Amino acid sequence: MPDDMARPLVRGRGEGGASRHLEALMSEPGAPIGILGTGDFSRSLARRLVASGYRVVVGSRNPKRSLALFPQDAELTSQMEAATQADLVFVAVFPEHHSTLLQLKPALAGKTLVDVSNGLQINRGGPSNAHQLADLFPESFVVKGFNTISAWNLQVGPRDGSRQVFLCSDHPNAKNSVTQLCRRMGFVPVDMGHLSSSLEIENLPFYLFPSWRVPIVCTLSLFIFFYLYNFLRDVLHPFIKKEKSVFYKMPIDTVNVTLPSVALVMLALVYLPGLCAAYLQLWWCTKYNRFPSWLDRWLTRRKQFGLCSFLCAALHAIYSLCLPMRKSARYKLLNAAFKQVKAGVEDSWVDEDVWRMELYLSVGIMALGLLSLLAVTSLPSVANAVNWREFSFIQSTLGYCALSMATLHTLLFGWNRAFSPDQYPFHLPPTFVLVLIFPLAVLLGRLALFLPCVALRLRQIRRGWERSQHIHFTLTDGDCNGLEDVSDV
Amino acid sequence: MPDDMARPLVRGRGEGGASRHLEALMSEPGAPIGILGTGDFSRSLARRLVASGYRVVVGSRNPKRSLALFPQDAELTSQMEAATQADLVFVAVFPEHHSTLLQLKPALAGKTLVDVSNGLQINRGGPSNAHQLADLFPESFVVKGFNTISAWNLQVGPRDGSRQVFLCSDHPNAKNSVTQLCRRMGFVPVDMGHLSSSLEIENLPFYLFPSWRVPIVCTLSLFIFFYLYNFLRDVLHPFIKKEKSVFYKMPIDTVNVTLPSVALVMLALVYLPGLCAAYLQLWWCTKYNRFPSWLDRWLTRRKQFGLCSFLCAALHAIYSLCLPMRKSARYKLLNAAFKQVKAGVEDSWVDEDVWRMELYLSVGIMALGLLSLLAVTSLPSVANAVNWREFSFIQSTLGYCALSMATLHTLLFGWNRAFSPDQYPFHLPPTFVLVLIFPLAVLLGRLALFLPCVALRLRQIRRGWERSQHIHFTLTDGDCNGLEDVSDV
Amino acid sequence: MPDDMARPLVRGRGEGGASRHLEALMSEPGAPIGILGTGDFSRSLARRLVASGYRVVVGSRNPKRSLALFPQDAELTSQMEAATQADLVFVAVFPEHHSTLLQLKPALAGKTLVDVSNGLQINRGGPSNAHQLADLFPESFVVKGFNTISAWNLQVGPRDGSRQVFLCSDHPNAKNSVTQLCRRMGFVPVDMGHLSSSLEIENLPFYLFPSWRVPIVCTLSLFIFFYLYNFLRDVLHPFIKKEKSVFYKMPIDTVNVTLPSVALVMLALVYLPGLCAAYLQLWWCTKYNRFPSWLDRWLTRRKQFGLCSFLCAALHAIYSLCLPMRKSARYKLLNAAFKQVKAGVEDSWVDEDVWRMELYLSVGIMALGLLSLLAVTSLPSVANAVNWREFSFIQSTLGYCALSMATLHTLLFGWNRAFSPDQYPFHLPPTFVLVLIFPLAVLLGRLALFLPCVALRLRQIRRGWERSQHIHFTLTDGDCNGLEDVSDV
Repeated sequence: MPDDMARPLVRGRGEGGASRHLEALMSEPGAPIGILGTGDFSRSLARRLVASGYRVVVGSRNPKRSLALFPQDAELTSQMEAATQADLVFVAVFPEHHSTLLQLKPALAGKTLVDVSNGLQINRGGPSNAHQLADLFPESFVVKGFNTISAWNLQVGPRDGSRQVFLCSDHPNAKNSVTQLCRRMGFVPVDMGHLSSSLEIENLPFYLFPSWRVPIVCTLSLFIFFYLYNFLRDVLHPFIKKEKSVFYKMPIDTVNVTLPSVALVMLALVYLPGLCAAYLQLWWCTKYNRFPSWLDRWLTRRKQFGLCSFLCAALHAIYSLCLPMRKSARYKLLNAAFKQVKAGVEDSWVDEDVWRMELYLSVGIMALGLLSLLAVTSLPSVANAVNWREFSFIQSTLGYCALSMATLHTLLFGWNRAFSPDQYPFHLPPTFVLVLIFPLAVLLGRLALFLPCVALRLRQIRRGWERSQHIHFTLTDGDCNGLEDVSDV
Repeated sequence: MPDDMARPLVRGRGEGGASRHLEALMSEPGAPIGILGTGDFSRSLARRLVASGYRVVVGSRNPKRSLALFPQDAELTSQMEAATQADLVFVAVFPEHHSTLLQLKPALAGKTLVDVSNGLQINRGGPSNAHQLADLFPESFVVKGFNTISAWNLQVGPRDGSRQVFLCSDHPNAKNSVTQLCRRMGFVPVDMGHLSSSLEIENLPFYLFPSWRVPIVCTLSLFIFFYLYNFLRDVLHPFIKKEKSVFYKMPIDTVNVTLPSVALVMLALVYLPGLCAAYLQLWWCTKYNRFPSWLDRWLTRRKQFGLCSFLCAALHAIYSLCLPMRKSARYKLLNAAFKQVKAGVEDSWVDEDVWRMELYLSVGIMALGLLSLLAVTSLPSVANAVNWREFSFIQSTLGYCALSMATLHTLLFGWNRAFSPDQYPFHLPPTFVLVLIFPLAVLLGRLALFLPCVALRLRQIRRGWERSQHIHFTLTDGDCNGLEDVSDV
Repeated sequence: MPDDMARPLVRGRGEGGASRHLEALMSEPGAPIGILGTGDFSRSLARRLVASGYRVVVGSRNPKRSLALFPQDAELTSQMEAATQADLVFVAVFPEHHSTLLQLKPALAGKTLVDVSNGLQINRGGPSNAHQLADLFPESFVVKGFNTISAWNLQVGPRDGSRQVFLCSDHPNAKNSVTQLCRRMGFVPVDMGHLSSSLEIENLPFYLFPSWRVPIVCTLSLFIFFYLYNFLRDVLHPFIKKEKSVFYKMPIDTVNVTLPSVALVMLALVYLPGLCAAYLQLWWCTKYNRFPSWLDRWLTRRKQFGLCSFLCAALHAIYSLCLPMRKSARYKLLNAAFKQVKAGVEDSWVDEDVWRMELYLSVGIMALGLLSLLAVTSLPSVANAVNWREFSFIQSTLGYCALSMATLHTLLFGWNRAFSPDQYPFHLPPTFVLVLIFPLAVLLGRLALFLPCVALRLRQIRRGWERSQHIHFTLTDGDCNGLEDVSDV
């Protein structure tokens, strides 16, 4: 019957099941786990293995000396003894000294060696430590892994049981046993395939926020540009033209005009790539062409762009809130009061100013509120708890609301001042004029996609339709999760 | 050969560890995973499977065309070829075109089909896509799953290895192999039982924050009510009575009186259901009666109510901090200065006003601080890291502290103004009077539960005691985790 | 022997399932899961098990009465019946009534009993409930677990599939089947080894933030000390010396001088232990000596110290932002305006004051920004998503930046006022002078470590070098993850 036909092959996959014989072996009296080396890492490893209910044998050059550093349940002995007793051996010595283990070769033959070593910096050319180990011990089954876990993590255990451990090996069986070991220690094993991935795995610990590089560079360069621009307009101009020294504005006022500009432009840059993707698909009349790589990378960086934008927006909020508490504000107010009294003006109320400020403040606060919602939902644990419709609703719908709010905030801030000539020192337009270009472009581009004809065509394309060929074909080949097409988000 | 020598012992370790025969099959040279369809989803799926160390065969209508879109390790071939090679086949074509696969029926017989399809909207009546597929291929073992995972998630991988995949099937063996596959891909499989659950699983991606609907509706309606109320009192009244136009208050001042009211009422609504539950149990003299469903639902929504309340409170804080930076505040201050000078009052200091404000500000800040602690601990990853005593300490004890603080904040804000007639325009009481009803009721109700007699009885009941019958019985039947009874939290 | 009798059926459950025979048993028609007791916990457990695709038999004293409370898929029957049918039985009755189950002894022989019970308070002496159960049923295989999971968690399921369940037992096979069951329910099993750990597991739910006790006590005592100190200087002194009553400062001003002091000292205390560790290693000329236990504990508490510091800093920010909105500030301003007018001073601008404030404000904001980055990355889910180089970059590099910023903030705030005698009421130095001692000490200590000679020596030591012995030896014994040595962070 078909069920039986399927079994043998299906059964093969995954961490397989038990048989009475096996279970007997699984009881702790079975073979212990070996560890070679007595550094911090092997110490923490031993502690963790013991805590996970394993017997542990640590192989050391001078067992007596290291004894104090290990949990008492762990047995300390000579390297040879450990290699002989255990079937699964962690090699926790410096890669440059793997060679000193050669004497253990016969004892390690036919056993699983886990290479947990790290290099000292990124190793592009290879060969990886794991490969070198495999060459030294051709008769053992080398598994690469655990190098991304710090002694620290091992000691305290994964904070919430969702710490990933990347494994690779050319020996699936050895890899399986390590996978199970790893899961029993409370980590999440991730199979990276053949030992050829070991180089990549060894480089993992050396990456320093690769996905953040571009967004941060963008933020900084925008910041510098706008800062200089505002410095020119607000500080240098009055100094040169009217000999008025307002350099005290540099630390706060100028920064506080710069931050929102950066925030808004960055926010626009979050939604630009999605638009580009949509328009490219419309242009190609298919979704099966690859996007240019820069667009692909941009699409995957949107979250980082968004968070940078949020950071600037939040700082802008704090800076603004600080304004009234400054001595400079106080002095200005006092002098204004003095003038008013001298001039005998009983009521200096200007309704337009009041309305303008009340409006752009309230809109600004709402924009910030929306942005913080977006920021919260980009936390891994929150993002994992929402389904993709919710995710895209927040990131796309709420995101565009936030963008519109922020734009409106800027427009209200600008009010009619874009048209008064005294806003153009050195013929430089006010900052908000420059800033508004991006978000307005994005918002208009998005609106265009709402035009019935365009919207319909785009939907067809995303369902797999192509001008060139018979519909039926592509549809069957189509993507059944087309809804959450990347460029929606 | 060494491999064999190693097996018996290595195999022993970890859960499962399959027999030699199996492990032979598990090595990559074993049966590959098949994918039918070449959309975004199948592309990302293929990439992920290859990364997890599987051999992948993709069945396409025209392999050549799709070739560029897939990782080179994935083998592209005809649908028939893929169906024949693989034992576990992902069906990634639009459900409405499952029929076009009928030609593969013989090849797919006795194999595991994973239906990853989604509908276009919620499907209440059924039948589910999975059922339809099962009807088309009666001799295959259909497993529903992965439809809640987006192509996006597949590509970038689960952010922290805790992404859940819901699976169901009528064939436990097929389900097991998919479960293991799924875990090896770094996801967390969740067994949903029989294929009858497939409809529910297919609807999952279409839910849009179901648990948030009620709380958000509550917040909005409260907001609208209080906004209109305050608008009437603070804006319309002076306009009608004294022809004084203070409409500029609408964007900020009025909102800023409304937000705290909503926040406080919502916070009271977080702790009301727990009280109701306790009083119901006291009334019934048993904990074995079911709560009315509205109460049950309310109890499960407390977190959402709390977060809405926090959001309002935080916005209230920002609005308040914005007050002094507004032009309106500036003008008022200047005019006040003018008046003071004209009147020749050297010191306008009013000690009571000062004390009132200093007090309610500081209490308010503390309340906000506590609320943000509560908000942080409701993040999934944080909530997972605390045991339930800690959780209930934060959510219940700290929560009630926050509630009391917020109430005190409002009382201090009110000071003695509730008794001055000029606070009753149109005979409308000040907002804080209305608002205080709820929290005071909750706090008094909670205090009542501290009365020794009541507290003792409640403890008994929660330990399983019932008036009606012999104690011994219920106790043995009782709940041994009674401590963290839901209504504590 | 009973073990064997139990195997075939127990083995069948979970994703084990290797041989055809097993898989046949794994299909739901196989042996059901038994639950004894009908409390909240067993109800939620039943619901969850059913949802995970298991057959469930609940043993109750009076099945009829409890029927309504359970999901209809769960079968309710007598305790004896349940004990007979199931091979894996959850014992969900109060520990003090385990004895009432003795009648089931023959039925439970050779089966797996899961003891989910909790005590009523921490039980230091033992024996644990699990041990007592094991003594009552010597022929059954007792597994301790699930007591850390609340009925609540069972009902809603783990928020993001990363909820840990701690298991221990003296019967590895029984433990395995529970492990698999537990994983299939969507939890993360953590093997705690032998039943001897059951006491610890039973105490887990009673711990109340053990790792937070010391940091919080530190924060509070520092707060009290500084508060009293500032009260003496700013409130009591003017009252005694000039009969000037400024008690209104107590709720806000005094608190707002106290908070930053606490925050800065706490932040210094985060980086002090790392320094101590480094200097101890330099002094010992080895990294193989154990640190004194107080230092070990301190090193593991740095995160909590940091978060306390951040909390104070954040509150300080809010308090400061509140300053200008207070009535007291308003009155002071008005009176100042009055004086200025009376004195006929047209411009009261003092450039030094302005610069001082602008500078320390902006530096303070940056420090807060950095601190919040640190706080965010200490969220479990975020911390799990970064590799240790990124983590140590944030916690160490950015952390020291934040510390320097905060110190600079304080220095700028102090300006030259440390040298004016009128800042020494009662000969008490200004608070910022006291506060600066710690951070400056830490920063200097850190700088000293950058001296080439010191830095080199330290690096050698951390690579395993020791004065006493031959290099080659220790290196091979060394730690290959030395890079992320704890004292870096």
